[in-house]
Amino acid sequence: MELSVTAPALPRDPGAVGPVAARAAFRSGLAVPTAGWSRGYAQANLIIVPKDLAFDMLLFAQRNPKPCPILGVLDAGETTGPLLAGGDIRTDVPRYIVYVDGEKVAEPTDITGYWRDDLVTFIVGCSFTFESALQAGGISIAHIDQGVNVPMYRTNRRYTSAGSLDGRMVVSMRPIPAAQVADAVRITSRYPAVHGAPVHVGDPRELGIADLGKPDFGDAVRIPDGHLPVFWACGVTPQAAVMESRPALAIGHAPGHMLITDARDTDYLVP
Amino acid sequence: MELSVTAPALPRDPGAVGPVAARAAFRSGLAVPTAGWSRGYAQANLIIVPKDLAFDMLLFAQRNPKPCPILGVLDAGETTGPLLAGGDIRTDVPRYIVYVDGEKVAEPTDITGYWRDDLVTFIVGCSFTFESALQAGGISIAHIDQGVNVPMYRTNRRYTSAGSLDGRMVVSMRPIPAAQVADAVRITSRYPAVHGAPVHVGDPRELGIADLGKPDFGDAVRIPDGHLPVFWACGVTPQAAVMESRPALAIGHAPGHMLITDARDTDYLVP
Repeated sequence: MELSVTAPALPRDPGAVGPVAARAAFRSGLAVPTAGWSRGYAQANLIIVPKDLAFDMLLFAQRNPKPCPILGVLDAGETTGPLLAGGDIRTDVPRYIVYVDGEKVAEPTDITGYWRDDLVTFIVGCSFTFESALQAGGISIAHIDQGVNVPMYRTNRRYTSAGSLDGRMVVSMRPIPAAQVADAVRITSRYPAVHGAPVHVGDPRELGIADLGKPDFGDAVRIPDGHLPVFWACGVTPQAAVMESRPALAIGHAPGHMLITDARDTDYLVP
Repeated sequence: MELSVTAPALPRDPGAVGPVAARAAFRSGLAVPTAGWSRGYAQANLIIVPKDLAFDMLLFAQRNPKPCPILGVLDAGETTGPLLAGGDIRTDVPRYIVYVDGEKVAEPTDITGYWRDDLVTFIVGCSFTFESALQAGGISIAHIDQGVNVPMYRTNRRYTSAGSLDGRMVVSMRPIPAAQVADAVRITSRYPAVHGAPVHVGDPRELGIADLGKPDFGDAVRIPDGHLPVFWACGVTPQAAVMESRPALAIGHAPGHMLITDARDTDYLVP
């Protein structure tokens, strides 16, 4: 319903669209998930909070770097920065979620109407960055192959709190063949700025996940025989933490509708 | 002169002293450089600022992670935390520097008299952590062999500012044989949380360093024939930034007199 009648058409190969053009398309009203867009460029989670919550948010991220790897921060009121050259954080993400007192009140494609000069923007790493490295390492990604969003689950693990921010760990899950689990650990551990190595391999019940078929965010995927569920810390965690602390206003991206940055995936590769 | 008459004697092998006992010795008044103490445990830089500067400090660190890798943050007024179990940040560092309006006013062995409930403590990674890995890799460390503190230099490179904090890059320098420069890069890049890979290899004039024989902090070292000067971002940077911004009060460690933490060096090894 928010789509403008002039919204641009979906490009034939979104992977070939560069980040500047991708942001321009979303700015013009295209509201689609960004998986597969702008191959080689880092996509990012978004969490925007008022300045009086910004220290707690940054400290929460420092204390919980696996779920909350901060790639960039825009100062209070700033709407652009080095990760989105020439862009506008209020319009360049395909879809946002607006929270008031911790409750979702809207999922707009543009947050210009909600903008305030005291809003601080946190750009948070996303596991999409290491998925292409996994694929290059010969590991197939079930949710990509099945054409759905990655399944994400709330767990029973609490994170280290910071001021008013607290929360339970949210994880993304990818089924990995037993013979490739070690490779998946090795490859993703080289990307510590985008969640890094898995937090858990195997039994989901230990994380308090009763049914892998019912993710809290994203879509369920089939787990083929001989595959183990492998869990990575997830960039939805800051949104979950913000919701628990019920601030007057907070804005995030809609799941799967990420900010496409000018940084390359390989910028976050170590060593 | 601040040494108590009951200050403990220097242990025969400081490397064999664990972090809890080392902090207790410093708490009792021992005021010595910590190089070589508590082998295998991470030593850390310290910067303590009032709460109203804490967001700027944390953001400065996020924007400049090579010089300012934050290992831990104690909330306003907190004097202990997981990196110094049972310890007290006001007494457990062998020597501190107190800055008022950006000027050094004291170098006490105890800051209890300066403590305020609005002080936030940042514990910042230190390159001592990767020095043992370099030695294990067959690379000798000149300043250790020569029994002096690592030489540190202010450079002409400015860091990305954050709020009121700004500053020039401070680097530490280690001479490395030309044939081992690649190994030194490879090994230190595996420690991104403690400054990581070098920022510069070779010509110091490009960094605005006129004379390697006259470091701004620490001691000069001889550079043997066939060695290149290799420069790493230095944890003194936050202190230099704080000095430039001239806050009413700030407290750091005295160079070479580090906080010995309960974290192991290998905790910061990736992947």
